[in-house]
Amino acid sequence: MSALISQVRVLAAQLGAYVGEVVTLKGWVHNVRHMGNLAFLVLRDRTGLVQCVLEGELAGRPIENESVVAVSGKVVAALKALGGVEVQATGLEVISAPSMPLPFEINKKEVKAGLESVLDHRVLSMRNPQIHAVFTIQSALAGGFREYLSSQNFTQIFTPKIVATGTEGGSNLFPIEYFEQRAYLAQSPQFYKQMMVGAGFERVFEIAPVYRAEEHNTSRHLNEYLSLDLEMGFIQSEEDLMDLETGLLRHMFAKVAAECAPELALLGVTVPEIAAIPRIPVAEAQAIIERKYGKLSPKGDLDPEGERLICQYVSEGGKPALVFMTRYPREIRPMYAMPAPENPNLTASFDLLFNGLEITTGGQRIHNAQMLVESIASRGLDPESFSTYLEVFRLGMPPHGGMAIGLERLTARLLGLSNIREATAFPRDRTRLTP
Amino acid sequence: MSALISQVRVLAAQLGAYVGEVVTLKGWVHNVRHMGNLAFLVLRDRTGLVQCVLEGELAGRPIENESVVAVSGKVVAALKALGGVEVQATGLEVISAPSMPLPFEINKKEVKAGLESVLDHRVLSMRNPQIHAVFTIQSALAGGFREYLSSQNFTQIFTPKIVATGTEGGSNLFPIEYFEQRAYLAQSPQFYKQMMVGAGFERVFEIAPVYRAEEHNTSRHLNEYLSLDLEMGFIQSEEDLMDLETGLLRHMFAKVAAECAPELALLGVTVPEIAAIPRIPVAEAQAIIERKYGKLSPKGDLDPEGERLICQYVSEGGKPALVFMTRYPREIRPMYAMPAPENPNLTASFDLLFNGLEITTGGQRIHNAQMLVESIASRGLDPESFSTYLEVFRLGMPPHGGMAIGLERLTARLLGLSNIREATAFPRDRTRLTP
Repeated sequence: MSALISQVRVLAAQLGAYVGEVVTLKGWVHNVRHMGNLAFLVLRDRTGLVQCVLEGELAGRPIENESVVAVSGKVVAALKALGGVEVQATGLEVISAPSMPLPFEINKKEVKAGLESVLDHRVLSMRNPQIHAVFTIQSALAGGFREYLSSQNFTQIFTPKIVATGTEGGSNLFPIEYFEQRAYLAQSPQFYKQMMVGAGFERVFEIAPVYRAEEHNTSRHLNEYLSLDLEMGFIQSEEDLMDLETGLLRHMFAKVAAECAPELALLGVTVPEIAAIPRIPVAEAQAIIERKYGKLSPKGDLDPEGERLICQYVSEGGKPALVFMTRYPREIRPMYAMPAPENPNLTASFDLLFNGLEITTGGQRIHNAQMLVESIASRGLDPESFSTYLEVFRLGMPPHGGMAIGLERLTARLLGLSNIREATAFPRDRTRLTP
Repeated sequence: MSALISQVRVLAAQLGAYVGEVVTLKGWVHNVRHMGNLAFLVLRDRTGLVQCVLEGELAGRPIENESVVAVSGKVVAALKALGGVEVQATGLEVISAPSMPLPFEINKKEVKAGLESVLDHRVLSMRNPQIHAVFTIQSALAGGFREYLSSQNFTQIFTPKIVATGTEGGSNLFPIEYFEQRAYLAQSPQFYKQMMVGAGFERVFEIAPVYRAEEHNTSRHLNEYLSLDLEMGFIQSEEDLMDLETGLLRHMFAKVAAECAPELALLGVTVPEIAAIPRIPVAEAQAIIERKYGKLSPKGDLDPEGERLICQYVSEGGKPALVFMTRYPREIRPMYAMPAPENPNLTASFDLLFNGLEITTGGQRIHNAQMLVESIASRGLDPESFSTYLEVFRLGMPPHGGMAIGLERLTARLLGLSNIREATAFPRDRTRLTP
């Protein structure tokens, strides 16, 4: 191993504390400009960018962008440079040079490549600071989810993604060859999270992938996505769940604002402060959309344009909009949805819309075994095929409910990304299985 | 809704602060004893057990174990009772009564049922306080993993579990019907976590399931298990990784000790304090095992008995044993394992053994594209079929390495559980797909 690479490393963001000292930096070559006898090398590490000034022999050396290098030199204050410092390089070693032409440049503010190419060469595109920032923020959102729920006494659970049957009667499932048997990829941890409530954990959450074998290939759908799931026992009504989600999102957003300030600045995004989130029955929302915008909605639901319009309606002066839609009809909600106390044709369920897109589905669930059996049968499904799920309801089950937040959708809406694939490191869709 | 269930609830563990006050409790009936005019009902909620004393009409009411109930009454100090308090009940409502006979009792210290029955009726068995404690501790271990790595500047990543090819050339994969294509369940996030290091995140972790279509059905294998994965760029050698894991496990164990004291007490487990963990080359361990115990090992590796014996050797006086095995031969490690600097037939890799069982596999990886292509070819594999993986090595890749910790194995070893299924909420094995 060469001399520089074995030196202890200082990170770009730490350099302010090292002015006047000689340090070693390690990272990727973001950019090099040759100016006669000088060269300006911008080095990129996980904390940011720093300019290194090369002179004489060092300036003459050919260095390709995206090479992994170690640079040593003296840190000096430089008001005009990135972060107010630069490094007067006295040593430079190439650890790993690219051995293929770069498919596109990533050292400009925008990557000039189509989304397909960006996804085909995902490792390269994620090196672009703007694209990189998306996934740093996504990590903070997931961390905030866990932190807040832990503070509320929730237990993290891990439930199987290989399942014997679907949660909704069998459509949109990916089949697996499981030894001699046929199994499926889980569409949601719905049954298992309810079972864990009934197993006495009462409050549980799971951060895990879910699978939907949906044929359509849209900017808002993935066939594998991250579901932030929670389920909570001993609730009074779905109002408790909307209260919980309000506090949860407030914490997640505050964490992003606190920990990802440079990333937000790079993306030009301000995280919304969450006050109370309005709760509007879907029938009322439909009436508002028709009255205000002359738009009719499908029976009992909003279509994507309706979701955009109701967000526009609640948004004051173009501010970010969050709105709960409540009281969906039973016929468009799953068999486990609790009927509304005042009208058995409606449910104690809700969706949360964020800037025009549904990012959460939730609600109170039926906890009475007999009522659940009847609800299953009323859908034309056979209660017998749900026997392991039904057991928990036959063993004493508290009132409960929960929700699922789509992590990629939440990230995309927060950051104003138009395609959910931009908030997914390695998306899986109708046609994409690689990288 | 009845009167009591809509009351605000006090949890069992909070009652010490309510002596002299009237409260409402909600939970499951753990046990009822009728004693003439009195009945003693032990209520169980997510925080523990509390005794409620029923008199008169209340004492005469038939109540089945595992009913979900709300009990109101006055909290009184009672030195002999659980937690030093009991509740003199004045109200009792059954929210949900079991509608099937309990397959076994869960209110004794040990559940008197075989493992198959325990797993068949998982919701019921997890209500047993001892079994419950296992999963509370598992949640804390996962939380500790995330906390420690976040403190060390790691980014949480989410990579696909549906993949086009295996990481090791195609054996032990579960096939999926992915629309018109054939895909597989990921055996590990190995390639993706390396790619995320090379995408500039440098330090990444993932908590997610992995899948192994292994035919054997043993007490130490699952076909779907939770892998705590991490990968780290700019390391000097695999020693950095063993240092990191030492600090990581120290934090995870300390978190369990701090947050799960009641659960540990219930299980009679003391969490080991981790000092330095010895690092022994596998050849040396083989020699020790032969010299001390007269046992021969398979070529370049330890078998399960050898893993037990080397742990016995490093354990002083039966104390919990943690030991790193290092310098495994190349032929038994994957194609991406970095050769050892002093001997190209060995690798800069390691396993961590904990009380006789391998709980971690890790090591430095090859980061040079040409060397990796040669390593792939030397296994008789076609480098072309790894082209999306190889791209990151052709775009500038730092020295790096990582590891994977099996969460169920770690939990089982920490708690002295003999079968890994005891540390799995809903195990998937050769024959089990439900619940």
